[in-house]
Amino acid sequence: MSKQLQQQFVHQVIGHKPEHNRLNASKSVGKGSAPVNIALSKYWGKRDTILNLPTNGSASISLPGLGTETQVKIISATKNHQDKVSLNGELLEAEAPFAKRVSNFLNYFRGNSHTLFEVTTCNSVPTAAGLASSASGYAALVLALDDLFEWNLADKELSLLARLGSGSASRSLFPGFSVWHQGTQTDGLDSYAEAIETQWPEFCIGLLEIDVKQKPVSSTQGMQNTVETCALYQAWPEQANRDLQTILNAIEEKNFSTLGKTAEHNALTMHATMIATWPPIVYWQPESVEAMHKVWQLREQGVEVYFTMDAGPNLKLLFLQTEKPAIKQAFKDVKILEPFKH
Amino acid sequence: MSKQLQQQFVHQVIGHKPEHNRLNASKSVGKGSAPVNIALSKYWGKRDTILNLPTNGSASISLPGLGTETQVKIISATKNHQDKVSLNGELLEAEAPFAKRVSNFLNYFRGNSHTLFEVTTCNSVPTAAGLASSASGYAALVLALDDLFEWNLADKELSLLARLGSGSASRSLFPGFSVWHQGTQTDGLDSYAEAIETQWPEFCIGLLEIDVKQKPVSSTQGMQNTVETCALYQAWPEQANRDLQTILNAIEEKNFSTLGKTAEHNALTMHATMIATWPPIVYWQPESVEAMHKVWQLREQGVEVYFTMDAGPNLKLLFLQTEKPAIKQAFKDVKILEPFKH
Repeated sequence: MSKQLQQQFVHQVIGHKPEHNRLNASKSVGKGSAPVNIALSKYWGKRDTILNLPTNGSASISLPGLGTETQVKIISATKNHQDKVSLNGELLEAEAPFAKRVSNFLNYFRGNSHTLFEVTTCNSVPTAAGLASSASGYAALVLALDDLFEWNLADKELSLLARLGSGSASRSLFPGFSVWHQGTQTDGLDSYAEAIETQWPEFCIGLLEIDVKQKPVSSTQGMQNTVETCALYQAWPEQANRDLQTILNAIEEKNFSTLGKTAEHNALTMHATMIATWPPIVYWQPESVEAMHKVWQLREQGVEVYFTMDAGPNLKLLFLQTEKPAIKQAFKDVKILEPFKH
Repeated sequence: MSKQLQQQFVHQVIGHKPEHNRLNASKSVGKGSAPVNIALSKYWGKRDTILNLPTNGSASISLPGLGTETQVKIISATKNHQDKVSLNGELLEAEAPFAKRVSNFLNYFRGNSHTLFEVTTCNSVPTAAGLASSASGYAALVLALDDLFEWNLADKELSLLARLGSGSASRSLFPGFSVWHQGTQTDGLDSYAEAIETQWPEFCIGLLEIDVKQKPVSSTQGMQNTVETCALYQAWPEQANRDLQTILNAIEEKNFSTLGKTAEHNALTMHATMIATWPPIVYWQPESVEAMHKVWQLREQGVEVYFTMDAGPNLKLLFLQTEKPAIKQAFKDVKILEPFKH
C-alpha cells in the first residue's frame, strides 16, 4: 500500500512510469552532486510518513564544499541479484543499512524487476561535524538519476523526488538559502523546496565538533516518538511556521539579529520537544551544554553569535564576518564556513 | 493593590487582622522547623502572581534531616527601624535580598507599622545540593509565627500562609509525600497542600551535587518568562495535572516504575518549557547531562533508577532500597536519603 503510493508519486513527478525511462546508450553513467544543509528553522514531525510530508515548513542554508558526489549506472544481473552500492570507496554488503536504504529508494526507478543499479557515492562531510549526509546523499542521487535518464526535471521536481528519500534532502539541491514549503495537498506535490536568491557575503557558519559517535536515535524514529508521546509537541507546528516566516523576512532584510535569535530559539524549541518525549531523546552531550553556555556568555560580552543544532549533539554557530576573530578565539577548533564566498 | 490583596488573604486565613494578634507575654519566642521538599510532579507557572496561585497541582516528597529551623520574636524599635534577620548565625544587612524578602513577608503580620521582628533562621540544607531553601524557609517561618502568636492554625491554613511566601513552601509542612491542590477559587483559599499518609520504607532519594553557583535565573522570574514567551508551555498545565494524578495513584499503589517514569518525564517536560523560553533558561550544566546519560545507561543495564530536577542543575535520583549498591557504585559522591526511615 505505502509502496504503491510512493510509486504513484514518483510517476507523477517524472511524468511517466519508470519502465518508460529512455536510456541513451551513449549515456551510461549519471552524475550528481549536492551540498549538505543546516536548517535555520527546523523540520521535526511528519504529517504523512509515507510521502515524507512535514507538519511545518522549514528554511536552511547549504554549506559550501561539504556534500555528496554520486554516480549511478545500470548494470547487468549480479550474482545475488542486488544493486552494488559503494560509499566512500568501499563496496557495501547488500545487508548494510545504507545499501538497503539506497536500494529501497531505487525501487521507484527500476524499469522492471530485473533492472539493477550500481551506485558510487562519496561524502565530503566530516562525519565528526555531525552534519546530516542523508540530505546531500538523496539530493545527489536524484540528480544522478536525472542525468542518467535524461529526464531534465526542473528544480521543483528534483526537490520532490529528493524529499521522498529524506525530508531534508528536498532542501539540498541549491547553494545558499532555501525554503521547503510545507504544502497542503495530500498527494504531496506541493511540498518541495526552492532556492532563496539572497546573497549575504558576511554570513558565517562555525562548525563545532562535539561527538563522533552514531546517533542514539535516528531522526525518523525520533520525530515519530515525539509526535506520539510529547504533549508539548502540539504547539510546535504553529511556532515552527511562525519562525519560518520570521526567518524568511530576516533573510530578505538581512536582519542578522532577528535571524540568529529566531534560529536559536527554534532549534532549542525542537530539542525541547525531544527532551519532553518519552523515552526522552536527549541528543545533547556535556560538551554541547558547555558550548551553549559559552555562546550565551559571549553574547553577554557583546559578541553577536547564535547557534543552531540539528538532531545531534553538535552546535553550528551563526555570526557575521565582523565577529570572526572573537569566535576563533573563543572556540579553538571551530571550522568556519562562508556560504556566499566562492 | 497587590499588597492589599495579600493582606486580605492573610486576614482571611488567620481569621483576624494582625493588629488583633494576641501576644502572650510569657511566649516571647515562636519556633518552627520544616523540611525541604523535592517535587515529583512540578510546579511551574502561576495563574496569579500576587497570591502565588499555580497553573497546576503538584506532589512532592520531603527530605528527612534537611530543612530550616526558625525563631521569631517581636523586638522594640531598632535604630534603623528595620527587622533583624540572621541566617545561619550571621546578622544580615537590612538590604540583603534574603532579609528584604523576609521583611516583606512579615509585613502581613505586623500589629501596626511599629511592630518589628527578629528572625533567626538556620538551614541544614547543603547549598551545594541545590535544594530549595525558600520552601522550608517560609514553612518554618509560618510555623514560628503560629507558635509566637498562638494562632493554633490547622495544616491547611499553615500551608496557605506558607504558599504566599513561596509556592513550593506550601508543601514543606509535612514529612513524606504531600500534594498541593491547584485550587480554582480566585481568592486562593483552596490552593493548599496536605500530607499523603502513605509510608514507603524502601523509597530512596540520591542527591548528586553538581553545582554550587547561584542560579542564573530565579524560579519566580524564570516561570514568568516561560509563561510569556514559550509557545510549548500551553500544553504544560494539562500534562502536569495528568502526571500529578498518575503519581498520586502510583504512590497509593506503591508502583515505583510508574512513579519514577512519570516523575522523570514530568521534570524533563518542565525543563523543556524552560529551554524553549526566550531568552533560553538552561539550568543544565555539562555535569547534569553527563549524569542523565549515566542514569539512562544504568536503566538499560536493568538498574531501575529515575531522576528528577528542580529549577537548577542538580539531579535527584529516585530508586528503591534494592538498587542502593548499584547506585553507590555508579555515583561515588551520591548522598542517599531514606525519607521513611526514622
